[in-house]
Amino acid sequence: MENLWLAARAEGLGVGWVSFFRERDLARILDLPPHLEVVAYLCVGYVDDFPPEPELSLGGWAKRRPLSWAVHRENYGRRGLPGEEPTSLLEETIAAIEPLHQRAVNEARDRQERMTKPPGSLGVLEEVSVRLAGLAGECPPPIPEPAAVAVFAGDHGVHAQGVTSWPQEVTSQMVHNFLDGGAVVNAFAEQVGTEVTVVDVGVVADLPSVAGLLPRKVARGTADFTKGPAMTRTQVAYALEAGIEVARDLVSAGNRCLITGDMGIANTTPSAALIAVFTGADPAEVTGRGTGLDDAAHEHKIEVVRRALAVNEVDPADPRGVLAAVGGLEHAALAGFILGASAAGVPVLLDGVIAGAAALAAAALEPGSMNACFAGHRSAEPGHSAALQHLGLRPLVDLELRLGEGSGALLALPLLQASVRALRDVATFDSAGVSGHT
Amino acid sequence: MENLWLAARAEGLGVGWVSFFRERDLARILDLPPHLEVVAYLCVGYVDDFPPEPELSLGGWAKRRPLSWAVHRENYGRRGLPGEEPTSLLEETIAAIEPLHQRAVNEARDRQERMTKPPGSLGVLEEVSVRLAGLAGECPPPIPEPAAVAVFAGDHGVHAQGVTSWPQEVTSQMVHNFLDGGAVVNAFAEQVGTEVTVVDVGVVADLPSVAGLLPRKVARGTADFTKGPAMTRTQVAYALEAGIEVARDLVSAGNRCLITGDMGIANTTPSAALIAVFTGADPAEVTGRGTGLDDAAHEHKIEVVRRALAVNEVDPADPRGVLAAVGGLEHAALAGFILGASAAGVPVLLDGVIAGAAALAAAALEPGSMNACFAGHRSAEPGHSAALQHLGLRPLVDLELRLGEGSGALLALPLLQASVRALRDVATFDSAGVSGHT
Repeated sequence: MENLWLAARAEGLGVGWVSFFRERDLARILDLPPHLEVVAYLCVGYVDDFPPEPELSLGGWAKRRPLSWAVHRENYGRRGLPGEEPTSLLEETIAAIEPLHQRAVNEARDRQERMTKPPGSLGVLEEVSVRLAGLAGECPPPIPEPAAVAVFAGDHGVHAQGVTSWPQEVTSQMVHNFLDGGAVVNAFAEQVGTEVTVVDVGVVADLPSVAGLLPRKVARGTADFTKGPAMTRTQVAYALEAGIEVARDLVSAGNRCLITGDMGIANTTPSAALIAVFTGADPAEVTGRGTGLDDAAHEHKIEVVRRALAVNEVDPADPRGVLAAVGGLEHAALAGFILGASAAGVPVLLDGVIAGAAALAAAALEPGSMNACFAGHRSAEPGHSAALQHLGLRPLVDLELRLGEGSGALLALPLLQASVRALRDVATFDSAGVSGHT
Repeated sequence: MENLWLAARAEGLGVGWVSFFRERDLARILDLPPHLEVVAYLCVGYVDDFPPEPELSLGGWAKRRPLSWAVHRENYGRRGLPGEEPTSLLEETIAAIEPLHQRAVNEARDRQERMTKPPGSLGVLEEVSVRLAGLAGECPPPIPEPAAVAVFAGDHGVHAQGVTSWPQEVTSQMVHNFLDGGAVVNAFAEQVGTEVTVVDVGVVADLPSVAGLLPRKVARGTADFTKGPAMTRTQVAYALEAGIEVARDLVSAGNRCLITGDMGIANTTPSAALIAVFTGADPAEVTGRGTGLDDAAHEHKIEVVRRALAVNEVDPADPRGVLAAVGGLEHAALAGFILGASAAGVPVLLDGVIAGAAALAAAALEPGSMNACFAGHRSAEPGHSAALQHLGLRPLVDLELRLGEGSGALLALPLLQASVRALRDVATFDSAGVSGHT
């Protein structure tokens, strides 16, 4: 609300609000999605006089968001300011994704050769720093800090098929654990100096309205995809938009690196299905034991993935359709999150197999988005290696983690930062008076 | 000097100094090694009265070192306070190395099972946290911070055999670069919040007396080991002691994790020789391309290692003899550094192939010292993998770095710290009200 007020002020608009209406009537007229709770109806118009300075901009708050981000014309999702052509947030985001800036790439490669170290001796981190320069469009690029991890949480109808030994309510219990600071993602985030944001895009249970939890519930879990599509295309669109908006807001708040997190009991099953579709691999190759299944349960899980691919029509050239058929709400939101960060020119550290499946969807929507993606770690799940190979990403950490939440990606953050710090701070042979090799 | 003063005060002793003497005469009488520069001759005795509080202890300076650390009786190296049996620093250090505390190990394993995550899902980091608990003797163990990296620098007579394309003076040029903050080790240390100490144990060139550089020059480089031993046993003993003392001082200064660093043009050649001796591997398997040799130069380097092993008598059961025959001064100092940290119950993060070769020597001197060692990364040098396998250590970072200086180990520090933070801060299923799996 405060940001909208600020944005309107920036455009020379005055804002007043109306709260005398029946909420659901209004939602029906404007075609609002169910996750939006209408708290006020705002009147926007031109006024003659303003106080000298907006109070909030003096307080060092988050950066001003463009007004257009918050304007839906007549119907939800039909974006654009009056007088402009309406756009879709997804299309607008994809259009904003730029290729790597070649000049910065070249400068970074050249500098890596002149730094006081044997050429190539920083191994994988040299190419990481080069790509970060290309993404930022300058060499050296800014150090990717502060960073923010967004944990997208959702439930899965396929849980009913017995694909995991964990009860579904653990999803919401773990969301509470995240908010209380008691999970691994909190411990690792504290270690690397990162804030944790939890985004409910599809948890079955009601969750409290508290700081640190963004309510973006598109549905109470997906449908069981062994019996039909997991989601509607509209739900996929809402989840994609939620992810884009979270990315945009976190970047607007000053973050220079976004980290993917996820929580959803049973979500390695839709991940396996998505990876099978996008990589063309057989379900047996990409379906893992998740958080610890025995042989029989593992066989059953593979069978469930096969059934999902048989029951639903899936075409890798139609990524929104694939997400709707066999994805999860957190997968769709993560794909949007990746696209949003990429459009902002900010690096994304991907976590494990859920992020890998979502990245395949993002790459199918816009291959250029992969320029912004760095594989934080390699999960013990076999599907993750298949996804990384398909995407051409090399994991920075490889320690057999299989937890999710963003834990593996958080561990990689200092490596990303160190690669830039070296590019920025290390002397060259010339400047340090060190002899080169013969 | 200030610490000695403080230590004497703590023992109820007064200190006065004499500077009227001929330095080299005194050195000869006391059998002092050449790296010691005599600046004063101190009189120590009992006095009747003191001011109420030592000024330095009020200022929050480094912890008090035991007086015995600085007392050499009659001859250098004959340690022990008056009235006590003289000891050797190396024997005393080895005797102080304790096995892992089993109770803390068990508590840590038990806690890993009860934390709100699937059992085993933190992969390699679970066992890391368990070992850190056993080393500290408590669960959770302290977070290994602050950490300090010590870069041991030395030159190598085998440089004359053309085993590298870099001129020997690059060793001292890089020491200057470290002191100016311009090297990769400085950039990475800043990223992870670590101080850098450089220790000259054997650089050919004269180096300045400046803060951040500890002068412990045992010799101006080693001898060419294709023609006889690289060092005398006395030089090895001095270098081992230098390493032990640096470890003790850094721990006394408050550090809770020590990181190995190294600099020495040509030092992958003695590393290969040491690894061949201690692992029993053929030189061709463990001799790498260092900072970038072509095929012919690589073949020549293997031949040089073979010659070193033919010319010198080497017996892996006599690690001091092996170090003297085919080691380097920084290798011996690093072995002492590992033993010193282990005796203090403080973890050591090992860097690449030079640290790996030194760790083999430390393990041969006292296998229990490996309980304190964590492999920071896996170098691209083939000998490093052989060393790690022999030591049973799993590298935390594996990104094809081949730089040395401590760079790879520094990157692993946040992983070590994160493993403890998880063990310490993550809620249990009981405490967080999260359901277990069925």
